[in-house]
Amino acid sequence: MSEASVAPTTPAPADLVIRDAVVLAWDETRGIHFLPGHDVVVRGGLIDAVQPTGTAVAALEVIEAHGMVAMPGLINCHAHSPMVLFRGVAEDVNEERWFNEFIWPMEVNLTEPDIELGARLAASEMISTGTTTFADHYFGMDAIARSTEETGLRALLGLTYFSSDGPAGLERGLDFAERWAGRGDGRITAALAPHAPYTVGHDDLVATARAAVEHELPIHIHASESRSQTRHSLDREGVTPIEVLRRAGLFDARVLIAHGIGIVPEDLPTLAGARVGVGSAAKGYLKHGTDTTPVRVLRDAGVPVGLATDGAASNNTSDLWETMTFFALVQKAVERDQSFLTAREVLEHATIQSARAIGREHDLGRIAPGFRADLLLVDLTGPRTQPVHDLAATLVYSAHSDDIDTTIVDGRVLMRGRRLLTVDVAALTAEIAPRLPRLTDRSHGRSIQDYDA
Amino acid sequence: MSEASVAPTTPAPADLVIRDAVVLAWDETRGIHFLPGHDVVVRGGLIDAVQPTGTAVAALEVIEAHGMVAMPGLINCHAHSPMVLFRGVAEDVNEERWFNEFIWPMEVNLTEPDIELGARLAASEMISTGTTTFADHYFGMDAIARSTEETGLRALLGLTYFSSDGPAGLERGLDFAERWAGRGDGRITAALAPHAPYTVGHDDLVATARAAVEHELPIHIHASESRSQTRHSLDREGVTPIEVLRRAGLFDARVLIAHGIGIVPEDLPTLAGARVGVGSAAKGYLKHGTDTTPVRVLRDAGVPVGLATDGAASNNTSDLWETMTFFALVQKAVERDQSFLTAREVLEHATIQSARAIGREHDLGRIAPGFRADLLLVDLTGPRTQPVHDLAATLVYSAHSDDIDTTIVDGRVLMRGRRLLTVDVAALTAEIAPRLPRLTDRSHGRSIQDYDA
Repeated sequence: MSEASVAPTTPAPADLVIRDAVVLAWDETRGIHFLPGHDVVVRGGLIDAVQPTGTAVAALEVIEAHGMVAMPGLINCHAHSPMVLFRGVAEDVNEERWFNEFIWPMEVNLTEPDIELGARLAASEMISTGTTTFADHYFGMDAIARSTEETGLRALLGLTYFSSDGPAGLERGLDFAERWAGRGDGRITAALAPHAPYTVGHDDLVATARAAVEHELPIHIHASESRSQTRHSLDREGVTPIEVLRRAGLFDARVLIAHGIGIVPEDLPTLAGARVGVGSAAKGYLKHGTDTTPVRVLRDAGVPVGLATDGAASNNTSDLWETMTFFALVQKAVERDQSFLTAREVLEHATIQSARAIGREHDLGRIAPGFRADLLLVDLTGPRTQPVHDLAATLVYSAHSDDIDTTIVDGRVLMRGRRLLTVDVAALTAEIAPRLPRLTDRSHGRSIQDYDA
Repeated sequence: MSEASVAPTTPAPADLVIRDAVVLAWDETRGIHFLPGHDVVVRGGLIDAVQPTGTAVAALEVIEAHGMVAMPGLINCHAHSPMVLFRGVAEDVNEERWFNEFIWPMEVNLTEPDIELGARLAASEMISTGTTTFADHYFGMDAIARSTEETGLRALLGLTYFSSDGPAGLERGLDFAERWAGRGDGRITAALAPHAPYTVGHDDLVATARAAVEHELPIHIHASESRSQTRHSLDREGVTPIEVLRRAGLFDARVLIAHGIGIVPEDLPTLAGARVGVGSAAKGYLKHGTDTTPVRVLRDAGVPVGLATDGAASNNTSDLWETMTFFALVQKAVERDQSFLTAREVLEHATIQSARAIGREHDLGRIAPGFRADLLLVDLTGPRTQPVHDLAATLVYSAHSDDIDTTIVDGRVLMRGRRLLTVDVAALTAEIAPRLPRLTDRSHGRSIQDYDA
C-alpha cells in the first residue's frame, strides 16, 4: 500500500441500490427465507451487499422497491429460443406428426436473420417474464449470441449438431464456443450441444466428450426424454440413454440433460457421481401427454433439477415463471402427495437448483455478496396475490410473471415498470410478420431430420 | 301501430360499440371461429348486432379494439369467492389436515363484513382476469350479493347449508333466493346450495329437491368430488354419490355439480338424461394431488363441463383464464393424447359449455344478437403471444389473463386498459390487512364441520 492511500477516502458510489425490498435469500440451514426491509447494493455487475434499509450508501441509481420482493433472476435450463416464431403452428397433434410434419420441415426455412429476430422476440419475452439466464440449444447460434449481446440477457449457448452433419457438426460447435465464450461483457458462455443419443452416434459422442474436457466446456444434450425412449434404447442397444452417454465418456465433462423423463433407478449412480443437472419443462410435458421429470428421485440422489421452457413451439411461451407453477403443481399430482415439494423447495429449484444445473452455483441463483446482480422485483399488491399470508406460496401458486415489475441482469435494468428497455417489441413483431408465410411453408417436402426415437 | 310512428325515425344511438375487433364466434356447424374486422353493437345490456366494421351506427360510447380479440366473458362454474382471504394459509398439507386443521377452523372466524371484503377482493380479481359470471357457494351470501351489486359482476349465488344446520339451512337458502334473485338489474340469480351428499342427509336432499322444483331454482352441490368419495359412498350406502342425488329427486331440478371427479360409467345414464352441468377446477386438482374431472366421458355423454376456480384457499387464485390453460393441458396429460381437446374445444368449454353448465346457454357464453353483453377484449400484441399463427392456440396455450385489456358486463365497462373501474384494490387490501390475524386464528379449537368424506 502506498503512503498516498493511507488517508481516509470516501468509497466510490455504488452503481445501483435497490431500496427497501423484501429479499428472497437462501442459506444451507434455513433454505429459502425472506428478509423484509433490506437494500441490495450493486457494484460492477455484482451484488456487493445485502443490508437492512437505512444503512447509508451513496449510489448512482436508486430503485425504490418498498414492499416488492427482490428475488434472483430465473435461469431457463433448456430452451430453443427462436422457436417462438413457430408457437401455435403445430397444435393438438401427436409427437411424431409434430416433428415430422410440422417442426422439422419448417426449420428448413429458417435463415440466420430469421433466427436473430426470433431470438430477440424470445429475449423480450424472457426479460418480461423474469428469465435472466437461458441455456439455448439451436441452429444459427451466432444470431442468438448477437441478440444476447444486444438485449442484455445472460446465456449459455450451444450450437446443435447431429451425426448427419458429419465431423463438421462438432467442429462448428467448437468454433462457435471459441468465438463467443466470454463476450457480452462475460454474459455469454458456451456449451457443446449434440442433439441427442438417438441422433448423434457413439463416435461423435466420444469426440464431443473429449473436446468438452479439453476445452473445459459443458455439454448440453437431450437425453432420456421419455420412458419410451429409454425402452427403445434398451431394446436397440441394451442400455439406457444415460448409459449410452456414460460409455461415450460424456460424464468426464459437465453435462446438462434436457428433460430426463426416462431416467430410471439404474441411471442414478452414474448421475449422482457426475457434474450433471437436469432441465425440466413441466408445461410442455402435460401438453405432449407424456410423463414428467422424476424430481423426487433426482432430489434424493442429489442431482439438481432446474426449470426449463423448451421451445415455444411445444411450450407456447418462454415464460419460466409459468413453468415454476406448473412444475410445483404437477409434482404434487404425479406423486399424489400434496405435501411433496413445498413452495420454498420449488423456489429452490427456480433459483439455486437451476444455477447448479448449469454449473453456476458459485455466482448465479442467489442474492448474496459476490453473486452476479441478476434479479427481479416482484409486485404482489395486485388482486390475484392479495392478501399475502406466505410469500413463498404467493410467488409459486398465485403470482404470474406479469407481476414482475423490474428485471436486472449484471446490474443493468432491462425492464422497469414492465417497460422493456432493450427491445422494441412492436417494431420486432412488425419485422417478423411478413416472414411468417415463408417460415411456415411446408410444400418443399424437406426436413432437417427424421424423428424416430 | 299508431299513425304518428309511420314517419321514418332515426334509431336511438347504441349504448356502446366495440369497433374493429376480431370476434370469437360460435355456431353449431363451425364451432368456435373468428371474425376479423367486426363491430359489436350493445343496447340495453344486450348484444344488438355483430357486423363488419364500417357499417354506420351512432353510439354513446365507442371502444376502439383494432386487433384485439373480443370474446365472451368467462363463467366461473364453482367458486367460494371470499376464500381469497385464506389463500396461502394452508399450503403443502394433505386434504384431511387442509380441512380439519386449517380451513374449517378459520371459517369459524368469518363475520359478514369480512365476507363482504373478501367477496369484493375476489370480484376485483375476477374482473381483472376475465370472469364476468360466477357461481358462488358459501356462507354470508348476503354480503356476496351486495358485493356483486356494487362491483357489477353477474352471479349465480347459493347459500351453503349442511344437515347439521337442521331445517333452518334450507329455509335460509330459500329466503336468500327470494330476497336476491333478480337484483343487481337482473345480474343476480339464485340457487339452492346444499354442501354435499356426505354432509347433507337424504331427507334434507329430498326437501331441497322439492323446494328447487317448486321455486324453479337450480341446485348447486359438491358431488363425486373424488374417486375415493365414490368408493366410500359405495361402501357406506351401496350407491354412488350421483345415485344418492338421483334417489333424493335432485335431478327433477337443474343441478350444477362441483368437481364430479368420481363420476363413474354407471352415473352417465342419469346425468345424460338430466338438466345438469359440471364445474371443473383443474388447477386445484393438481395441487391436491387428485384425479381430474373425466372430461372425455362427460363430453361423450353430452354433459356440459364448465370451468371453475373453486376457492382460492385451494386454487390460490380466482383466475379462470389460468384454469382454462390448466384444463386444456391436464386433459391431454391424463388422456395421454396430444390430439384430445383441441384449443377450439377448450374455448367451447370456457364459453358455451360453461354457460350450459349453469343453465344460461340462451343468453350467456356467446357474442351474438340477443345475448347479454358480457365480454372481454384481449390484447395479443405482447411478447408472450407473438406471433399469432392460430388465435385459438394463442388464447389457450400462450395468453394469460393479464393480456385482457377490457372487461364488460351487461354492457357496462368494469375494466379498461387494465384499470378496474368499480373496485379500489389498494383501499380494499388496506382494509383487509388488520383483520388477518383474527381471521387466521385457530386457537379457539372450533370448526364449522368435520371432514370425513
